[in-house]
Parts: sequence; C-alpha cells; structure tokens
Amino acid sequence: MEHPRLVVVGSIGLDTIETPSERQADVLGGSVSYACAAASFFTRPGMVGVVGTDFPRRAVALFRRMGVDTRGLQVADGRTFRWSGVYEENMDNRRTLRTDLNVFADFMPELPAAYRRAPFLFLANIAPALQMHVLEQVESPRFVMADTMDLWIRTTPDDLRRVVANVDLLTVNESEARHWTGKHGLLQAARELLRLGPQYVLVKKGEHGSMLVTRQSVFLLPAYPVEDVRDPTGAGDTFAGGFIGRLAAGGRVSEAALRGALVYGGVVASFGVEAFGLDRLSRLTEKEIAARVAQFRRMCRAG
Amino acid sequence: MEHPRLVVVGSIGLDTIETPSERQADVLGGSVSYACAAASFFTRPGMVGVVGTDFPRRAVALFRRMGVDTRGLQVADGRTFRWSGVYEENMDNRRTLRTDLNVFADFMPELPAAYRRAPFLFLANIAPALQMHVLEQVESPRFVMADTMDLWIRTTPDDLRRVVANVDLLTVNESEARHWTGKHGLLQAARELLRLGPQYVLVKKGEHGSMLVTRQSVFLLPAYPVEDVRDPTGAGDTFAGGFIGRLAAGGRVSEAALRGALVYGGVVASFGVEAFGLDRLSRLTEKEIAARVAQFRRMCRAG
Repeated sequence: MEHPRLVVVGSIGLDTIETPSERQADVLGGSVSYACAAASFFTRPGMVGVVGTDFPRRAVALFRRMGVDTRGLQVADGRTFRWSGVYEENMDNRRTLRTDLNVFADFMPELPAAYRRAPFLFLANIAPALQMHVLEQVESPRFVMADTMDLWIRTTPDDLRRVVANVDLLTVNESEARHWTGKHGLLQAARELLRLGPQYVLVKKGEHGSMLVTRQSVFLLPAYPVEDVRDPTGAGDTFAGGFIGRLAAGGRVSEAALRGALVYGGVVASFGVEAFGLDRLSRLTEKEIAARVAQFRRMCRAG
Repeated sequence: MEHPRLVVVGSIGLDTIETPSERQADVLGGSVSYACAAASFFTRPGMVGVVGTDFPRRAVALFRRMGVDTRGLQVADGRTFRWSGVYEENMDNRRTLRTDLNVFADFMPELPAAYRRAPFLFLANIAPALQMHVLEQVESPRFVMADTMDLWIRTTPDDLRRVVANVDLLTVNESEARHWTGKHGLLQAARELLRLGPQYVLVKKGEHGSMLVTRQSVFLLPAYPVEDVRDPTGAGDTFAGGFIGRLAAGGRVSEAALRGALVYGGVVASFGVEAFGLDRLSRLTEKEIAARVAQFRRMCRAG
C-alpha cells in the first residue's frame, strides 16, 4: 500500500444534531471524518483517530470506499466519542448539549510507519500536547496546518504556542481569533497570530467566507452561497480538509497554490452542509465539484 | 453649468455619533452627503435634499469643493435634520438615541430643470412616495438604483413595491432582505426581491461585503479589510454612491460594468469609515483610490 501524501489527526465521533427543522442521532462526525472525506476527492488521506468497539462497521467501510487510508484508525475498548448540539436562531448559534469523550479521553495518536513521511499534515482540533506528539513522529513534512479551539487557548496556551510555532498554517475561526488576541479587527488579530510563528493564518468566517493572511498579503474568499443549509456541523473541517487535500494533490506550496486550493475547500464544504454528517460528501462526484468550482469562480470575478 | 450624469436624492443631516472610543457632535451626514461625496471622485453628482437655516456654510462649501452640484439643495426655514446614535459591542451594534426630522419632515424633492435628463439616478433612503415623486420628474433615465429601510418595509409596503417595480437596482442590507422576505438565506431573499421587478438586487453585508444578484447570476464581493474603523456611519451610502458614481462615469450598464464599479464603491467606503463623517473622503485622492483598488483586486484573486 502506498504512503499517504496527507495525514489527518483529530476526533472521530457520533453526533446527535438538532436543527430548527430536524434531529438526527449518531451521525458520523468528528474533525477527522469530515476532513478526510473532503480530502479524499483529491488525494488518499491517512486518517489518525480513535473509536470505540461500538463504532459502526459501515462507517469504516464508508471511509474506505471514499478512498481514506484507515491504517491509523485505532479501536479502543469502550464507547466512541459522542457529542450532541442544537442549532438555534436560523442556525446562527450552536449550543452544545453534551460531550462524552469516552475512548477519546485517553487518545494517544500513533502514526503507522507508512504515514511518517507524509509531506502534508493536518493537525485538526485536539489537545495541543497531542498535536505536538504527532508533529514529533513525522519526518520533515513540507506543509503542516493546525486547527484549535477556545478550550486550548484558555487552558493550555503554552502548549498551543509551541504547536503554532512549528506549523506553516494556523487556522482559527473568527471568534477564536478575537478571543486569543484581544483584537476585534480580524486583520489585526491575524497579524498578531502570525507573530507566533506560522507563515499563514487562515481565519474562517462561516457563511461569510474566509481570509488568508501572510506577512505580505491578504486573500479574501467569500463563501459559496448555499441555498439550503441542512447541517452546518463540520463545515470548517470539511473546508480545511478539502483545501489541504487539494494542496497535497498538487504538491506545490505557494500562495497562489493555497488560494486555488481554498476555492476547492470552500466548494467541498458548500456541498457538505447540504445534508447531515457525510451524507452529501459520500454521494459527491468530481464532476459536481468541478462544475461548482467554475460557477464559484464566476461569482467571484470582479468585472 | 453642465447637466449632471448622476442625481442623488435622500437625507442631509447633522449627526451626533458615539463610538466605544470617542464622541463627535454635529457631524455632516445623511445619505445624500455620503453618496455624493463618494460619487464625486468619478462624476459631478447633482444633489437633491433639504437643510435648515442653521446648516453650516462650510458644509455647502465642502460639497462644492468636492465637485458636487448643489443646485438641488433646498434651504428651508427651520432646523436641519438631526440624528444621534451610539455604536456598541465593538461597533457591531448601532442604537439610535434620537431622531429630529426638523425640516426633513416636510421635504418635497424638486429637481432643478438641469437635473431632469440625468441618465443615472440614486434614490437613497427616503419615504417611497417621495422616491416615486422624483422618479416622475426624470426623463427616461438609463439606470435607477433605490435604497430603503425597515421603516418603509413595515409602514408603506405598497408604495415601496411601486418604487421597486420601477427601478433597475434595489439595494438592501442583510437584515432588511431577511425581514422583507421572511427568507433567512440571503440568496433566496434576493431572488424573492427580484420578483418585485428590478433587474439587480444588491445585498449589503457591512464588514462581510456584498452580493449582487440577477436572475442568471450572483456576484460575491468581500469588503476591503479596514484596519481601524473609526466611524461606520454612512458606509452603505458611501458604498452605493461610489458604485453608481463610477458606473455613471463609465456610462455603460452591464453586469461586468456593475461588478467593476462595486469594487470602487467598496474601496471608497473603506476609506470613508477611517474617520468621522466626510473627514476622510474630503481628503481622499484619486491616486489613493487607484492604489487601494489595485491592492483590493489582488486580495480577491483566487489563485
């Protein structure tokens, strides 16, 4: 079996999701699931994560069918990570009802030997100490992207700074960027975060798009306007996964390549939210992606 | 004196503005002031509005110095329209403290003869019946844009529909689009508004940019990321004024021309919010606009 060009580490879980119009239980989710599904349209991502003995076989089969390398998927005694949340006020606000870490509480990410020379690495949102542990296992990666969340910014800021100093791209959402830096202006916040070491800061703004900031430049990408958002869960991970999957497939790391790959990430994420969990991504075709990318580019063309 | 290619009708007022960091009283404002100042970089706009006898001469002098045609400026017995408001929560929320219509209460917009053949017309936010009255005075305009606000959507919906059926472009902000149509998705809301008659609907999203929707297409324009917003008052009117001023100067009406003009509108608006009232616009140069337009276009280039 070949060595993956991209490795993704993070959470795998079963989510119970309530939107203003529907509710679904035990939906396949977690950052690794979304990111690997999104990346699978462009490369064969190597997944690193843990599930319990209750994890449905058909979920593993789905990952494999989508072209995800599951050699890094650990099965531990106990139950799979579970999260439940509710979207309120027209999906603009998400409230967590319950988080049961289960086997995820003792997760220690170990990379299969075949993964250790992957040139592209996505450290999705897990404890910074675990992100660091993964970083130590890869041999001279070409491009490392890290995501994080408010919890780690608050509770383990030193660990987080160590991670950020060792990655090429840090991705945060709008509120995290503000909370972390104390700057309300997103550009100022992103510039503060660049001072921690990464070459790129990607600020995710949900339905308002994203902003890629370097020391010399800014790239503004709107979001593709989705007509009917059924489940926004995992949209940020899908965006990030589609982006780095496309980047890994191309192999070149330059600002132009990053910009182009972000367009693909945005498009894959726009499909993802059209259904719950991986339902839409698992039916998505390369042809649909190409058509929407062309349409999206036309939407962004400034006269 | 030549005939203006663009006529703008709306409010002129003196605003008292409080932001989290400062407060200024009797700042020159109103939709016509902002829109004409913004348009003046591209064409010589004809202003239509009313002020009281207390209106400062230096404000009129400023309009003239900026190249605004003030023949449509009426001076009525009484005090000038006054508004005061406060920006809260990092400028994300604006609360009106007080509105004194004064002479604006009896405003009846009459166009000087020289204005009646203007090919471009911007009906900024005033009562729809007055917008209609202006429409009836212009002879076969090539392009008419109308703005409105929640108040008219609520109180005079029939008048408003009559206006909208007779304009080429309707501009609304995000919350107005949602409130008016009952649709949360902005694309769906814009499509509903197209059914009222206009060829274009421009949804303004403030710091998140704007969206131009036609029956066949969508254009997504991010906002230029302003580092230090000192006063967001009038940003929407500045955006609209810069846009239609640029369009009027070019003379061509096509979707490509509109997209290009929106970039200019966005850039002029980004300068406008860097200071209170017209302070920044009155010092702005064509060279600064050109430089930021080039920079903004680079920021929007998708790889």
